[in-house]
Amino acid sequence: MNHSVQLLGISNAIVDVLAHIDDTFLGKIGAVPGSMTLVDMDRAREIYANMGPATEMSGGSVANTIAGFANLGGSAAYIGRVKADQLGGIFNHDMRSLGVDIRLAAATNGAPTARSLILITADGQRTMQTYLGACTELSTDDITPESMGSPKAVLIEGYVWDLPEGPDLTAKAIDIAKKNGTAVALSLSDSFCVERHRDSFNHAVRNGVDIVVADEDEVSALVQTEDFDDTLDALDAYDNLFAITRSDKGSVIVQGDERIVQAATPVDEVIDTTGAGDAYTAGFLFGWVNDKPLAECAKIGTFCGTTVIQQVGARIEPGLLDNYS
Amino acid sequence: MNHSVQLLGISNAIVDVLAHIDDTFLGKIGAVPGSMTLVDMDRAREIYANMGPATEMSGGSVANTIAGFANLGGSAAYIGRVKADQLGGIFNHDMRSLGVDIRLAAATNGAPTARSLILITADGQRTMQTYLGACTELSTDDITPESMGSPKAVLIEGYVWDLPEGPDLTAKAIDIAKKNGTAVALSLSDSFCVERHRDSFNHAVRNGVDIVVADEDEVSALVQTEDFDDTLDALDAYDNLFAITRSDKGSVIVQGDERIVQAATPVDEVIDTTGAGDAYTAGFLFGWVNDKPLAECAKIGTFCGTTVIQQVGARIEPGLLDNYS
Repeated sequence: MNHSVQLLGISNAIVDVLAHIDDTFLGKIGAVPGSMTLVDMDRAREIYANMGPATEMSGGSVANTIAGFANLGGSAAYIGRVKADQLGGIFNHDMRSLGVDIRLAAATNGAPTARSLILITADGQRTMQTYLGACTELSTDDITPESMGSPKAVLIEGYVWDLPEGPDLTAKAIDIAKKNGTAVALSLSDSFCVERHRDSFNHAVRNGVDIVVADEDEVSALVQTEDFDDTLDALDAYDNLFAITRSDKGSVIVQGDERIVQAATPVDEVIDTTGAGDAYTAGFLFGWVNDKPLAECAKIGTFCGTTVIQQVGARIEPGLLDNYS
Repeated sequence: MNHSVQLLGISNAIVDVLAHIDDTFLGKIGAVPGSMTLVDMDRAREIYANMGPATEMSGGSVANTIAGFANLGGSAAYIGRVKADQLGGIFNHDMRSLGVDIRLAAATNGAPTARSLILITADGQRTMQTYLGACTELSTDDITPESMGSPKAVLIEGYVWDLPEGPDLTAKAIDIAKKNGTAVALSLSDSFCVERHRDSFNHAVRNGVDIVVADEDEVSALVQTEDFDDTLDALDAYDNLFAITRSDKGSVIVQGDERIVQAATPVDEVIDTTGAGDAYTAGFLFGWVNDKPLAECAKIGTFCGTTVIQQVGARIEPGLLDNYS
């Protein structure tokens, strides 16, 4: 099979708006610390008007993975909807500057480009209030054999199921992938997202998804177990490849009867865990599309995740693998 | 005199677009390392298209000073022109969120909000390519007794003289200030800016400007001396109050025959010198509007500048003076 690129991402295209807040702010706006909440434009505007000065940068979970994958040296493409406004220009610029092939033109009508208000307390915890804007208008018509091409793998973000046409457009993407010999990877996004879409996710995982990337909470939510050993037992009933991150407990790769345990790398100081999972996914899939053994994929993923938690900022910088051995 | 606010800033309202670049990039675009160059939209677009992913945040020299001044607890207002676009929204939000009274409504027509492409090499040096956009349309009509009010002091940015109506609108601002008992402070911005406008600056300094804030290179450019002792001698011919920063040599306050030398505070590690001068100015003027003795103003300025060089980012955080003694 001749693949046009190695990895295509389909996800919410979001600009992050980061601000430090004091401990009383979350209570004032009624936000649950550490949560990701979808908000409408009025609510986003109200919170923004009351929060402090901010820093803007391109974000989004799978978009971060795609950016990191490109910085590792992989060839990547991206499908996500932004508007042709300044934030959309920022998002597309940042992806293109990494060599990512942007498959959809910025929309000239509809809602503005999505932004996630990321509220950071003194302890470093992040609470996200996300206005999906243009993302919500990603449609089944945007997913075509032409826009998808024939990548070696496609990574679909669980959050896409929150979009009005999300279930349909992801089904179509999986269908096109199957016809092209493209492997389908699914990121479970967060455990609340899994709770919202458990049946749909299970259906997809049993019908077309090849690889599931997730942390242990998300997988537990998917299979409805509490103990991680029970979670692993439950995966006996699945045929998929699972790459499961477990924070300082490392990661576990599950495929059929095989269980590969990759230890975490001890670090002197954790600066910021944001993006660690997305970076792990970038490294894992970079190994996978380059036909590395699964143990090696896990090792590259761990290397990427370990690097990201020792820096401020979620994204993998270029040349990271120069230090990989 | 009853002053509506303590400090009003008049300056270019700019969103910073920061990206790390490799050492060959500046050569490729023909930029002088460490310089600030004004560019047109085509050139800005070309450089942006070729630079890597970026982070956006509100910036601008005097705007940073005003933001810092507000964070020190001062009451502040601001005159600068942005367009009613997303970057303009970001700029005004960030200033307002600090309690700064924005005096001009965002423009619904004309050029887009200004942005400064800030290219950071591995050694931390910053090279700026600035598209002034909406700033260039700041007009004499924007400067009125109503928009200015009667602040205790107004701080005008040297860069404003680069604008088409800059000389006229600054003359008008100084005239209105004089009628209201508002002290006029001038930031010399950078030594190239002084070279461009030396005669105008000298005219303003001798006709209405009360306080000059600058680093030693800028003052030397103003009085055309090379040695700092000669610079100080040349200032005998001026009636103004000068607050002159000298990096690790500290700062010198000049008023009439008086010379106050404030030593720099030794620091273990300089993280990022960006914004040190703007922070010093914020602290110095915060002391000045609160009627502190000049030696105390210099000490507060030094405290602010010293703090900023030990952090990433140009701006003074709220509550900084909690640690001042």
